[in-house]
Amino acid sequence: MIFKTRTPFDVALDMFLKAIVPIEDTEVSPIREARGRVLARQIIAQRDEPNYRRAAMDGYAVVADDTLGASELSPVVLKIGDDVRRGVISRVHTGSKMPDQADAVVMIEDVERLDDVAEIRAQVHPFENVGLKGEDVRRGELILSPGHRLRPADIGLLSSLEVDDVTVYRQPDVAIIPTGEELVGGKPAEGEVVETNGLMNALLVEQWGARYRYRNIVLDVRELIEAALLRDTDADLILTTGGTSVGIRDLVPEAVHKLGKVLVHGIAISPGKPTALGLVENTPVVCLPGFPVACLVASYAFVKPAIYRLAHLDRTFKRSVTGTLASKLTGKPGSRTYARVAIRNGRVEPIMVSGSGILSSMAKADGFVIIPENVEGYDEGQRVEVVLFD
Amino acid sequence: MIFKTRTPFDVALDMFLKAIVPIEDTEVSPIREARGRVLARQIIAQRDEPNYRRAAMDGYAVVADDTLGASELSPVVLKIGDDVRRGVISRVHTGSKMPDQADAVVMIEDVERLDDVAEIRAQVHPFENVGLKGEDVRRGELILSPGHRLRPADIGLLSSLEVDDVTVYRQPDVAIIPTGEELVGGKPAEGEVVETNGLMNALLVEQWGARYRYRNIVLDVRELIEAALLRDTDADLILTTGGTSVGIRDLVPEAVHKLGKVLVHGIAISPGKPTALGLVENTPVVCLPGFPVACLVASYAFVKPAIYRLAHLDRTFKRSVTGTLASKLTGKPGSRTYARVAIRNGRVEPIMVSGSGILSSMAKADGFVIIPENVEGYDEGQRVEVVLFD
Repeated sequence: MIFKTRTPFDVALDMFLKAIVPIEDTEVSPIREARGRVLARQIIAQRDEPNYRRAAMDGYAVVADDTLGASELSPVVLKIGDDVRRGVISRVHTGSKMPDQADAVVMIEDVERLDDVAEIRAQVHPFENVGLKGEDVRRGELILSPGHRLRPADIGLLSSLEVDDVTVYRQPDVAIIPTGEELVGGKPAEGEVVETNGLMNALLVEQWGARYRYRNIVLDVRELIEAALLRDTDADLILTTGGTSVGIRDLVPEAVHKLGKVLVHGIAISPGKPTALGLVENTPVVCLPGFPVACLVASYAFVKPAIYRLAHLDRTFKRSVTGTLASKLTGKPGSRTYARVAIRNGRVEPIMVSGSGILSSMAKADGFVIIPENVEGYDEGQRVEVVLFD
Repeated sequence: MIFKTRTPFDVALDMFLKAIVPIEDTEVSPIREARGRVLARQIIAQRDEPNYRRAAMDGYAVVADDTLGASELSPVVLKIGDDVRRGVISRVHTGSKMPDQADAVVMIEDVERLDDVAEIRAQVHPFENVGLKGEDVRRGELILSPGHRLRPADIGLLSSLEVDDVTVYRQPDVAIIPTGEELVGGKPAEGEVVETNGLMNALLVEQWGARYRYRNIVLDVRELIEAALLRDTDADLILTTGGTSVGIRDLVPEAVHKLGKVLVHGIAISPGKPTALGLVENTPVVCLPGFPVACLVASYAFVKPAIYRLAHLDRTFKRSVTGTLASKLTGKPGSRTYARVAIRNGRVEPIMVSGSGILSSMAKADGFVIIPENVEGYDEGQRVEVVLFD
């Protein structure tokens, strides 16, 4: 399975996402624990918020007509009481309930209190400085739609509307299967390598809103790889790491091919070319390359969007920063190139490394500049967008 | 304490951050649980990575001199064995250990295997397709510096270098004290409001890397507010919500003034003007306004940078997206204005609301467009930067 031809990134991603069915299982979560979860049902307000007329300013609640003609030079004198009626005003502060008969608030700055009476030095109109019942939310109003990921302010809003529980989609369950005979979980002898691609993906997947099963290392044996894949077909997504290259170690895509279907093997991204995408018993599988940086790039390129699709997150935004390139960046011809860069004092500095195995370059980098297939590169001084690492 | 004068945002933030001392306490965390934590010590590689010479390609390990003159038309025939010496080659795959006497790898595509011999159809030079010991990381190399927040790839790298534990700064401990006599924790009667500002801040603070103590609601009584502040002076940061407005409910800044020092009260941001910043027994305090949106804006403006400073996170980037304004946005003259916007099909749509209490506008918004003090606003069709909500 030598991939002389490489599928363009867009084609590969599109094909893969089309094969992924968003999770339909739902569960109920207490609102206070629902941060980051994705709503499965719309939320309709069951009551008005606020549930009363409130003062929008600190001052005195009044019957607006009583202030007719009041000004700095000719104040109106009114009595101060606990309740409001014609001729009587009452102290209120921002957010507090308006007395029933009051229909406006005179700001504190415009009132001079003199014992049990007060001079009103400004005229107010009915409803001035008064927030109406239901001003923020009206009963029956659509508040949030399915597919919305709950943020702290949403949880605040829903709590204020007395929504105690929300129905959310189950989180995607991602199986992570590291493969490779040189890998060890503990202390490596000479010729051995500590398993880190699986670990890195476990942490990323969690950050992207999914749960994970971090499986033991599987040796480069066809039967073991097949068994490992079959064991996790109840997951929503399977990630393998390693064994995607040409030659004898092309075992993982071959196992996917035997058990299911390889959609793409060999993608025009750099690094990350040996990535394969497929299905085993309808469970989507991303075969990630073994070189750590290629693995990371492929995770950003395919695993993150796959998780978002499983989770019903259709409206997501790539968060990025822009800066000026400190030196020329060249893409790999014909490939979508992910160049590692650091941002120093607003300048975007390419990290000069060769090879896709150089994980230490990741520690120095703040993110990627993505150079599309049809772009040769970017010149020193050009403004570029940096996709920051999660 | 009527704040006719409002401190410019930059001045207020600078004054506040200068009063905050980053946390010096450290603790040791297992590397696998250290995502998001901030390094307190530099990390120096204790060994080479990889710890062996490795094949950089799938193919056959050879003594390079044996391939002299080999080509498609005049292949060189060599013996296949388990180890490599002059005249004998051995199968290797990407990442595997190079046999001791081998100094190059011929790519699999350039080898035709014939039983126990192989035709080599390309010449390789010494070191071709071989990764050197320490190629990724050299023993003694500085890997990461203090103040670095650990991301999944960093944890992968450190694990590969057999770093099992890391020394990190203690997470900031933030006390959150909601104040207001209209607030209730449970079901609100008419005239009552569910406490949500404290809850929202608890979730935000956690997202920004801190721990929190979410305190009970404190009534608008001077002594109770003072007692609540004093109880939490062992925290790294105190947030209060509500009670920052003019008039009788100006209680919280007054309590800060009595017990410590108010640095700023009244800031030229909109919404969020009534925010106060101060110190009680050297513990920084942010008095957040009670109106939910003003409260949220003030959290982004002051609480997030305060937490980052406490946590030693000096190198942070504002993640944003840019888009085209769907309609005119006008700032409040003289104030740094935080306009809520939604992003639909790459267009930035202002959320039309009035008042800073309209929490429902937050649910509809994806983020803020920040209009600086000296800018009147932005026109329809202009490119603007949207700071997305966390």
